[in-house]
Amino acid sequence: MAPLRTALYQGPGGVPRTSEDSLAALARTARRAADAGARLLLASELYLTGYAVGDALPGLAETADGPGAGRVAGIAAENGLAIAYGYPERAGRTLYNSVQLIGPDGSRLANYRKTHLFGDFETDHFTPGDRAVVQADLDGVRVGLLICYDVEFPENVRAHALAGTELLLVPTALMRPYEIVAQTVLPARAWESQLYIAYANRCGREGDFHFTGLSCLAAPDGTVRARAGVADDLVVADMDPDLLKASRAENSYLGDRRPELYTSLL
Amino acid sequence: MAPLRTALYQGPGGVPRTSEDSLAALARTARRAADAGARLLLASELYLTGYAVGDALPGLAETADGPGAGRVAGIAAENGLAIAYGYPERAGRTLYNSVQLIGPDGSRLANYRKTHLFGDFETDHFTPGDRAVVQADLDGVRVGLLICYDVEFPENVRAHALAGTELLLVPTALMRPYEIVAQTVLPARAWESQLYIAYANRCGREGDFHFTGLSCLAAPDGTVRARAGVADDLVVADMDPDLLKASRAENSYLGDRRPELYTSLL
Repeated sequence: MAPLRTALYQGPGGVPRTSEDSLAALARTARRAADAGARLLLASELYLTGYAVGDALPGLAETADGPGAGRVAGIAAENGLAIAYGYPERAGRTLYNSVQLIGPDGSRLANYRKTHLFGDFETDHFTPGDRAVVQADLDGVRVGLLICYDVEFPENVRAHALAGTELLLVPTALMRPYEIVAQTVLPARAWESQLYIAYANRCGREGDFHFTGLSCLAAPDGTVRARAGVADDLVVADMDPDLLKASRAENSYLGDRRPELYTSLL
Repeated sequence: MAPLRTALYQGPGGVPRTSEDSLAALARTARRAADAGARLLLASELYLTGYAVGDALPGLAETADGPGAGRVAGIAAENGLAIAYGYPERAGRTLYNSVQLIGPDGSRLANYRKTHLFGDFETDHFTPGDRAVVQADLDGVRVGLLICYDVEFPENVRAHALAGTELLLVPTALMRPYEIVAQTVLPARAWESQLYIAYANRCGREGDFHFTGLSCLAAPDGTVRARAGVADDLVVADMDPDLLKASRAENSYLGDRRPELYTSLL
C-alpha cells in the first residue's frame, strides 16, 4: 500500500493579527507541502486564531462549517492535499477547542473537540468534548484526531489504537518546560500503542507562553521519522502502512493486553 | 521526609552455574550498596537462576518461602537494607515468574507474579499472575512491584499510580533490540503516571538472548536519576518523597484523567 506523505507545519509563530494572516501562511505552506509530495498537512492547535488570544477568544470562534473552514477547504482542494487545523469552535453558546480534517477535495471529513483541557486559559473559555475517538479514512488509512494534552494520557491513544487508528493527528501548543512530551512521550506513545503519531506544534512566544516547537512524526517501530527545530519549520515524512503492519506483527502489545486486570482505570 | 536511597544491581551477567553463585554475588553487592547508603537493592528478573535456563526451569523453581528466599533474607538483615529479586516461583504444580521484596529485617514484605508474559520461553513455562497491583510499605514509601514486559503496558503503571504506589520496582530481562524501552518508555511511564520507577536489567549474553543493560531510576519530573551502562554495573540514586509530592502538585495527570471516556480499554 502506498505511503501517505505527511507534512507538519510549525508556524508561523506569534499571535496572528487576524485569521487572514493564518490563512495566507497556510496557503503558502500547503503549496510547499504539495510540491514535496505531501498528501496531508497538519497545522497546530488553535492555528486559525493563535493560542494566547485571551478574552478575545469568544469573538474569534466559528462553527465547524464557518468561513475559516471554507477557506481551508479551498486551499486543500487547490493543492490536492488534506489539511487538519486547530481552531476555536462555536456550537450554539458553547466553545470547544477543536481540530478539523478537510479532505483533498475540500470536503469536511471529521471534527474533534479536545477532551482533556490544559491550564486556566483553556478551562476558563472552553467546554471539554465528550467523544474520545473521532476518525476518518484518507487514502485507505484510518486517521484519528486528538489535541495537545490529550495525547499525554496513554488511555486516549490506546482507545484510538483499539478502534483501528493507524495515523493519529495531534495539533498541539506545547510550551516550555515540557519538552519531555515532544522528545520522550510522543515516541513512547507511538511504540506502546503501535501507530503513527503526527504532532504539529506552535513555536515562538505568545504573551506568557513560550512554545517549544519540536514537532514530530513518531512511528510504531520506535523511530522518529521527522523532527522540526524550535522555530518556524515545515517537515515532511511518510506514514507507511506496510511498516505499520510489520511493526504490529512484531510487537504484539495490542494483542497481549489483559483488559480484565485494568478495571481500576475506569 | 527522608529520601529512600535505591540501588540497582545489573549483574553479574550470564547464567549462573547454580543459584549459589547468584547469592554470593548478591551478598557482595548488598554490602557495596549498604556502604553507599542504600536502603533498598533491586536485582533483575529471574535473578536467582538466570533467564535462559530453558527446560531446567521447573527443577530450579522454589516456593516464596523457599531456601533462596531464606538466604536473601539473611543478606538483607545482615546489611540492613531491603532486597527485591526475581525468581521462578513454584506454587503447587504451577510456576510463576515472580519478584519478592524482603525487608531490611529479613521479613517477606510482598510477592508479585508477572501478569504479562513475554515470548515463547515464558509462555511455555509460566502461568501468568492474576493480581495487577501488589504493594508494600518501606520506610513510609508505598512500593509496588511489576516485572519486565508488564511495565511496557501503560495500564499496569497507571493502576499502580491510582493505587498509591510511589516507587515501582521492576526487575527486567530486556533484550536487544528493545533499547527503546529502557531509554524512552521508562522515563515516559514515570512522567505520565507521576511516580518513581526503578528498573534493574540483566546484561551480557545468555543463549540466544543478548540483554541490553541500561538499568535506570526514572523520576516523576521526567529526569533519569541513575543510568547503568551495558555491562555489569551497580548504580545508586535517591527516591525523594518530597520531589514526588512537588511533581504531582505541578503535573496533575492523575487528577485530570476522565475515566468515563476510557471504557473501550476494558
